[in-house]
Amino acid sequence: MMIELSERMRALVQPHLVDAEPYDPMFSPTRINLSANENTYGIPAAVRAHIDEALAQATLNRYPDAMSNELRDEIAAWHGVRREQVCVCNGGDEGIFNLLLAFGGAGRTVLTCPPDFSEYAQFAQLLQTSVATVFRDPETMLPDGPALVEAARAANLAIVTSPNNPTGDLMPLDLVAALCDACPGLVMVDEAYMKFAEPGASALALLDEHPNLVVLRTFSKAFGEAGVRCGYIIAAPDVIDVYAAVRQIYSVNVLSQAAALVALRERAAFDEDIATIKRERGRVYTGIEQLLAGTAAGARVWPSSGNFLLVRLPGCASRIRTRLRDEYSILVRDFSAAPGLMDCLRITIGTPAENDEVLTALGALVKEELA
Amino acid sequence: MMIELSERMRALVQPHLVDAEPYDPMFSPTRINLSANENTYGIPAAVRAHIDEALAQATLNRYPDAMSNELRDEIAAWHGVRREQVCVCNGGDEGIFNLLLAFGGAGRTVLTCPPDFSEYAQFAQLLQTSVATVFRDPETMLPDGPALVEAARAANLAIVTSPNNPTGDLMPLDLVAALCDACPGLVMVDEAYMKFAEPGASALALLDEHPNLVVLRTFSKAFGEAGVRCGYIIAAPDVIDVYAAVRQIYSVNVLSQAAALVALRERAAFDEDIATIKRERGRVYTGIEQLLAGTAAGARVWPSSGNFLLVRLPGCASRIRTRLRDEYSILVRDFSAAPGLMDCLRITIGTPAENDEVLTALGALVKEELA
Repeated sequence: MMIELSERMRALVQPHLVDAEPYDPMFSPTRINLSANENTYGIPAAVRAHIDEALAQATLNRYPDAMSNELRDEIAAWHGVRREQVCVCNGGDEGIFNLLLAFGGAGRTVLTCPPDFSEYAQFAQLLQTSVATVFRDPETMLPDGPALVEAARAANLAIVTSPNNPTGDLMPLDLVAALCDACPGLVMVDEAYMKFAEPGASALALLDEHPNLVVLRTFSKAFGEAGVRCGYIIAAPDVIDVYAAVRQIYSVNVLSQAAALVALRERAAFDEDIATIKRERGRVYTGIEQLLAGTAAGARVWPSSGNFLLVRLPGCASRIRTRLRDEYSILVRDFSAAPGLMDCLRITIGTPAENDEVLTALGALVKEELA
Repeated sequence: MMIELSERMRALVQPHLVDAEPYDPMFSPTRINLSANENTYGIPAAVRAHIDEALAQATLNRYPDAMSNELRDEIAAWHGVRREQVCVCNGGDEGIFNLLLAFGGAGRTVLTCPPDFSEYAQFAQLLQTSVATVFRDPETMLPDGPALVEAARAANLAIVTSPNNPTGDLMPLDLVAALCDACPGLVMVDEAYMKFAEPGASALALLDEHPNLVVLRTFSKAFGEAGVRCGYIIAAPDVIDVYAAVRQIYSVNVLSQAAALVALRERAAFDEDIATIKRERGRVYTGIEQLLAGTAAGARVWPSSGNFLLVRLPGCASRIRTRLRDEYSILVRDFSAAPGLMDCLRITIGTPAENDEVLTALGALVKEELA
């Protein structure tokens, strides 16, 4: 996806964009796609039927409700907050972008905690925002709390992710609280994967005490609606006012609003698949741990609270990813070229059958490549 | 919709955003809504049935095709351009925003030709882009060609609208060509309403000769999909490369892609309603002309190539708009506070029955307010 701009375009774009590159999901069509942390179980059939009914009833020729108020009220009720604390976004992406647009910008700093979601830094670049980083421990992949808090004192926006993509760990709530206390700007906790964690981990519990906290959620993961592009932020009402002033008012269309609303109203129907994913995560973790035992030094898998596992395969990660794709038609995500993720792949937890295939294929390839 | 930011938010947002205001569609629920230039005929039933089938078949749990390639190819084939010349957007809004993000910015200038779509200036402000304006003639509402061309020499991006919203006139193609020749940056022609104009007016014909030309189109108007949020830009491939590098890659969801694709494939089904709208536009124009004849000096209606008419009602536009809404439950758009549009309302052309009601109500109110 690397694009080389033409000479004339390099002269015409804003100078800081000359080397801008779009986010690259590194997609190839395969039989089993475990590369994008989607919910591979799909939407439960009964929910899907209701979504289709809602879509068929949607009025298409009128502009959407700019604030998605019906959906917004359902989100607010679910999380026990007020409507004024919620704004719906065109996927979590738009939430991240618009927060950077409002609170980042030239001469300002966003703090991140890599390895994390690469989009934070990419959008920061688009908006000329300096990126300050406090890297995670290269072995535990856990954040350095004191260093993060110290760095937050100079940040206009601090972004942490919980569970973190791609390392899988939860951001401790006392650390989130300390970040909010230290940061003169806003602290955003990206909770895209929170539905896969054990209860009690969400920073939503800190909202009342910390008016500079923003929590980002999405329907793309546990709710199986990555294709629908619907996310939301929850924050103090005056943060939402700012967000609403910089967003494109019709960014969430009537179909996405309708599909998200049905999924949310029928959220109990997703519980069984989410429970299976969590159980499978444990099984795949153990399976990978076993097949790596006694192989190369440094080979390992990290515990995860998301619907994915990070795996380190010293010296052969990229090759194993390619062979998984080409010989088994299984796509996983290669992060081995990303800072702090040398030799690492990220594998989405799929259905039991998909996970069986991954374990079998990975077992064979590890024997050949890592023995 | 005017939002007063809190003290702490005024201190935290980027300074140029302290007074940012979201686009305000001034919507109120009414029986007849002729305020937003939507296609009030809706989508033809056979097309809608096919859209619903396509929506029901859409895969929701996987991320969308980032480049909407199936839709992109259909758009390219329709307009006789190559796939590489097309990028699909989350409504025309996103196209405008991202062009400003790429080619505008601090220290740069966008040229507009007001009265025009207020979003150009609003998005320019969000992105710290200076706005240079060459106002239209206050009586004819036509652009001052030589002054526009002169101003284009100093612009990074020139935006013109054809048919222009809300004045209804077409931008002459020789003027578009002259702008492209004069402007060292890009020239965007917003053709949201082009399907309501006579054939031969589109700047698409100039693309081959003018590599700095960008044409913006949308499914929101003639195609009756304002709720779907789908638009696109057509330009030289290297312009599309830049655009693709600054956009949020998943901004167009699978449902919008599917709904737009069906509408485009079955575009012939919209022709009858579009023809009726054009006929009705003539009838309403004549009707308003007649009911204004011999009233106040300056009362008038302008000819239009869009699905709307601009009407000037000296001294009573706002009041007539309010009375239309409150006494007749008919919503039209009040532009009387907008620069260059004193005393003006914009009325969308609706169905024959809707237009009958507008003419009757307006006739009664003009007699009372403007006699």
